[in-house]
Amino acid sequence: MLYHPLRPLLRTMTTAALPPSSIPLFTTVAAFRQWREVARRDNKSVGFVPTMGALHDGHMSLVRRSLAENDLTVLSIFVNPAQFAPHEDLATYPRTLPRDLEILAAARVEAESGASVRSPSAVFLPSVQEMYPSGIHQDPAVQKGTFVEVKGYGDQMEGKSRPTFFRGVATVVTKLFNAIEPTNAYFGQKDIQQCLILKRLCRDTLLSHPDPAHLHIVPTARDPSDGLALSSRNAYLSEDGRKLAPTLYKALAAAQQSWNAGHPKSVCVEHARAVVEGAGAAVRLDYIELNDSDTLEPVPDAARRTEAVSKPVILSGAMWVGQTRLIDNIVLGDLNKIR
Amino acid sequence: MLYHPLRPLLRTMTTAALPPSSIPLFTTVAAFRQWREVARRDNKSVGFVPTMGALHDGHMSLVRRSLAENDLTVLSIFVNPAQFAPHEDLATYPRTLPRDLEILAAARVEAESGASVRSPSAVFLPSVQEMYPSGIHQDPAVQKGTFVEVKGYGDQMEGKSRPTFFRGVATVVTKLFNAIEPTNAYFGQKDIQQCLILKRLCRDTLLSHPDPAHLHIVPTARDPSDGLALSSRNAYLSEDGRKLAPTLYKALAAAQQSWNAGHPKSVCVEHARAVVEGAGAAVRLDYIELNDSDTLEPVPDAARRTEAVSKPVILSGAMWVGQTRLIDNIVLGDLNKIR
Repeated sequence: MLYHPLRPLLRTMTTAALPPSSIPLFTTVAAFRQWREVARRDNKSVGFVPTMGALHDGHMSLVRRSLAENDLTVLSIFVNPAQFAPHEDLATYPRTLPRDLEILAAARVEAESGASVRSPSAVFLPSVQEMYPSGIHQDPAVQKGTFVEVKGYGDQMEGKSRPTFFRGVATVVTKLFNAIEPTNAYFGQKDIQQCLILKRLCRDTLLSHPDPAHLHIVPTARDPSDGLALSSRNAYLSEDGRKLAPTLYKALAAAQQSWNAGHPKSVCVEHARAVVEGAGAAVRLDYIELNDSDTLEPVPDAARRTEAVSKPVILSGAMWVGQTRLIDNIVLGDLNKIR
Repeated sequence: MLYHPLRPLLRTMTTAALPPSSIPLFTTVAAFRQWREVARRDNKSVGFVPTMGALHDGHMSLVRRSLAENDLTVLSIFVNPAQFAPHEDLATYPRTLPRDLEILAAARVEAESGASVRSPSAVFLPSVQEMYPSGIHQDPAVQKGTFVEVKGYGDQMEGKSRPTFFRGVATVVTKLFNAIEPTNAYFGQKDIQQCLILKRLCRDTLLSHPDPAHLHIVPTARDPSDGLALSSRNAYLSEDGRKLAPTLYKALAAAQQSWNAGHPKSVCVEHARAVVEGAGAAVRLDYIELNDSDTLEPVPDAARRTEAVSKPVILSGAMWVGQTRLIDNIVLGDLNKIR
């Protein structure tokens, strides 16, 4: 069921250093474009799931959605240096390529028509040089070359503690969208601010691959036993830390319950804060906030749920468990109403 | 010979306020995309000439080149607010749409095959709202939405006196490229820094429409009698100013001659400066500089022409004639060697 229109060319397209894979691997834009061109000629829709590798079931929920909705599915695995500040964990970020490729090779989804079983069609594994032809420095002050910034939407919420993070994300995703030219793209709700910024990026730059309506936000995958949002950084947690980690989601759920009961934002935040404080000294709340899903501005302290409001509100937070910072969010309102 | 695959739809695609035109006019991205999709299905190449209107023979040299090299040619006419600083001439920039459309309707070029005569196929005339869905403020400090910056290449030469100019250019051209998805794009050498920045933008963002090799720099169109570079801003010149305006080109030509004779940059610049000073007090030199065509950094004062150097050097300058600032440049070396 694999889509291998260019099988004879594959040997020249992959580098010898890559692990074996039954899925075609592409390390250059030029090589991938030949594959893409064949798919276009054959009128195949292409779903795209960008990742930094270290795949877990959260990623796989995006892959399954893409497989179900597209003729072909492409993943990228690229740890993007531009979204790590100099003091952050670029060097130690988990890299598990052989395992990632095994997981992908085993992925199978029945097509919506029911007629066929689909699995991922291609993996794009570019080098840093391929993605940053003008080079890339960790220090933003000396960076040269093209950068994309979504001004006014990347300095609150997560952007507060990571000032150039969303510039790095917007830049690399612009490049990936241009390289892959997907029909549909899939991002996890766990990184909700990223999703909203990228939708705006597509709208503002008049992009057709994908247009903002074809950038899909997939609900956060959670541990079914305790609701912890799946994340590559959960691997950093100790056994005790793992037990405390679901506290953030519990706090958000408490705030959601208060919101639905009609309490103002300030009370909802207090209820969430109390949940984290009740969990003991080993966890520390970074922030809980409610933001307008369109402007990303915090909603006023006195704001409360009204039946008339149709625009969703983002309830999000970050919490430290030891040295590990976890994030999570709940959309108050209809996720599908996010433009 | 006009390409009108969507003739029946045109009435709904154009706005009533537009002047009459035999060329299809598109005011929205959505409407243009239908046209573009038909061209793609028919396997037609699409050449693109972005303009701010006020068309003169400099623009038409780009149009003729595009007509000769592409099945279809699209122009855009859009006065881009993001590239005007609050104190600059956005409000008074010449707008001559009815005349522009007449000029375009009269343009005819024989196709390279000789079999047919081609004329422009479509004009894209978007509103500011269409190009800036998140809105656009003149003041960069309060701007919101997506902006594209080519860091390290827009703060020297012309960027020195216009600090956010190239950010505005890179942003609008990114949008236009995404809206038009051209096979080839044509820019005038007169704005050489713009050309080099946009080539880098295409390379850095891994763009396919166009890729950097399909972004063409067309030699500057000049008044055949005195060499003055054609420019929409020449319309601001008085009769006396018009007579003095070619001084800049004469100064650049003097520097070129010195360079070719083996003089170091410092001497070439002095020779150019002397030409402007000799023209009297009505003209005032802003700068003359020689820059590396790859890095855009000024070449060292002692640098001189060597046979071994294959990378072109940009000799450029700006000069005031009364209240009007004129720019011009000469590429020392082979324009086609610019990547």
